[in-house]
Amino acid sequence: MPPRFQFTLNKTDGAARAGVIKTPRGEVRTPAFMPVGTSGTVKGMLPESVAATGADILLGNTYHLMLRPGAERVERLGGLHRFMNWDGPILTDSGGFQVMSLAGLRKLSEEGVRFKSHIDGAVHELTPERSMEVQRQLGSDIVMCFDECPALPATDEAVAESMRLSMRWAARSKAAFGDRPGHALFGIQQGGVNRDLRAESAEALRAIEFDGYAVGGLAVGEGQEAMFGVLDYAPAMLPEDKPRYLMGVGKPDDIVGAVARGIDMMDCVLPTRSGRTGQAWTRRGMVNIKNARHRDDARPLDEGCACPACRGYSRAYLHHVFKSGEMISGMLLSWHNLQYFQDLMANMRTAIEAGRFEEFRTGFEAEYRRGDIEPL
Amino acid sequence: MPPRFQFTLNKTDGAARAGVIKTPRGEVRTPAFMPVGTSGTVKGMLPESVAATGADILLGNTYHLMLRPGAERVERLGGLHRFMNWDGPILTDSGGFQVMSLAGLRKLSEEGVRFKSHIDGAVHELTPERSMEVQRQLGSDIVMCFDECPALPATDEAVAESMRLSMRWAARSKAAFGDRPGHALFGIQQGGVNRDLRAESAEALRAIEFDGYAVGGLAVGEGQEAMFGVLDYAPAMLPEDKPRYLMGVGKPDDIVGAVARGIDMMDCVLPTRSGRTGQAWTRRGMVNIKNARHRDDARPLDEGCACPACRGYSRAYLHHVFKSGEMISGMLLSWHNLQYFQDLMANMRTAIEAGRFEEFRTGFEAEYRRGDIEPL
Repeated sequence: MPPRFQFTLNKTDGAARAGVIKTPRGEVRTPAFMPVGTSGTVKGMLPESVAATGADILLGNTYHLMLRPGAERVERLGGLHRFMNWDGPILTDSGGFQVMSLAGLRKLSEEGVRFKSHIDGAVHELTPERSMEVQRQLGSDIVMCFDECPALPATDEAVAESMRLSMRWAARSKAAFGDRPGHALFGIQQGGVNRDLRAESAEALRAIEFDGYAVGGLAVGEGQEAMFGVLDYAPAMLPEDKPRYLMGVGKPDDIVGAVARGIDMMDCVLPTRSGRTGQAWTRRGMVNIKNARHRDDARPLDEGCACPACRGYSRAYLHHVFKSGEMISGMLLSWHNLQYFQDLMANMRTAIEAGRFEEFRTGFEAEYRRGDIEPL
Repeated sequence: MPPRFQFTLNKTDGAARAGVIKTPRGEVRTPAFMPVGTSGTVKGMLPESVAATGADILLGNTYHLMLRPGAERVERLGGLHRFMNWDGPILTDSGGFQVMSLAGLRKLSEEGVRFKSHIDGAVHELTPERSMEVQRQLGSDIVMCFDECPALPATDEAVAESMRLSMRWAARSKAAFGDRPGHALFGIQQGGVNRDLRAESAEALRAIEFDGYAVGGLAVGEGQEAMFGVLDYAPAMLPEDKPRYLMGVGKPDDIVGAVARGIDMMDCVLPTRSGRTGQAWTRRGMVNIKNARHRDDARPLDEGCACPACRGYSRAYLHHVFKSGEMISGMLLSWHNLQYFQDLMANMRTAIEAGRFEEFRTGFEAEYRRGDIEPL
């Protein structure tokens, strides 16, 4: 029998936590940032390059993969790890969030949701049971409960109704998931920005018992202040001895703020999406490489960064290939951004383990707000 | 003083030749295929990956680089090698061919050609002297004479007139190039498919004396039979002790046929352009990865290939990421194609050195014409 999924909390520093998730496919050092491999690829990157940045785990999207190439096909081909050539752990979302944001003509019921594919208009259905089946077919190491995520702002009544539906779906997800040693199932707390509803949701999830717990329903347009407001209390409502995952976050300052509030795992498309649109994240904040100020700048993007973009190329080159629409632009900036995000996580882990996270955070914020180096 | 440019012919086998070009930036094993790095990047590839396929030398395009980012800028930034992070030799074309194929509103005179940039409509001029200056600013190791390349079919009179203009420009190119130890200047034979004109052109070039000689004016739509017809006599008109370069060629069978006829160097955008459009070149000919037959095929593209695409992925995956429009599709197929082309060159060099090139060629053609492996 494969070893069980296991989380060890090594150190806390204030609310910040450093630990390690052990899975049969390898360890995940937390706080962890998970690059997103939506359709079986972290856009613009080879998987060995993603690993080289220090990523321990990827996220795959159930919605995209079930529509194309299809979960049954991925299973026949040996599962998602083999399909996309990534040996490490993979977390898959449940598909629920993307049904809401991408699919056409959705019909929500107690049973689940029927929707039309945004690719070919074909009608599909996702239920807690079907989501568990798809994630099993993909071979996911960390499976997420099927939930509903209402857009904010919404009335307390709407948020409560949605949250309670998600909690009934969480129980059905757990039942459908069954007993799969070496694989983990995470519950997802809902409740919007309402503390009582967050508490009710946490209570419901704790009663079901999961291997880890996500704080869901944030990073959906509520703004950083509102998000941090929820994170000031929501993680502490979840079991201390299980990993806590903040879904879809975020910018570097969101990530540092979330870790400061007790979050262990995050994911976001930002590093690769920004990379494809000419935006680079650095210790000195965001750099727009398309800006003409870089045209003659022989300096690297970030002289403290060890990624290929910073080791091998000038800002002038990165500007040129972006303006020329060359693939290498997205390749190099995506790599840099993923490297920056992983370096940030590594620095936070080191700081937490040394008991000086607040010092790190103060330094990070000062540097981050300083803005880019002076133009030449 | 840097070591001089030097060509050593190690072995001939029929008309086929194996040798080595020594430059201060490294050696080029011939027959050599040069990947094209049009605008300072071999599309979809990092330069270290291009080197990993076995490429010794890249081609850069004078026309593209002078328009964007500009040759003066590249010079200020330390030259093209440093700009694009490629330490090995670089050959640059003269810009003449692409002025004819890409620029708007061209005006040709004895002096040179005035044209409008296809990027922003700005008016530029290229003359033999300006082309030499631009290629010096880029830091090219092998500089090409500025020539005119007429589209075929054309009348003998038109081809003769154009060829003689190119020969006058060749003399001006040589004078403008001057004495640059460690850098080479190649002349370009013209004369279309007319043997007398090819001989006249070769005579004119030999009188000027160059470090190498290109067979120009082919691969412009005349077809393989006509091209091979010229290659049956044209290379032998050029000095035996200098490298012979066939510009813009080609498909794998074009390349093998050209080497069989005494060509030492070639370049083509085909491996990367095909890679971006879902076409893979293999020992069994061209494979269209977008074809539905690959959808469930767990086999690699070419099981005899050691490139990342063939080592790490199924045809089903390559099909999926192509259909999904993912960057990794162009990245993996470009890498595969460049690997295939370089493996082909290496196999030809080995065969020539062993005195069994015809045997290699017969085997290559039989396998190449067999077509792809049977569908599952």
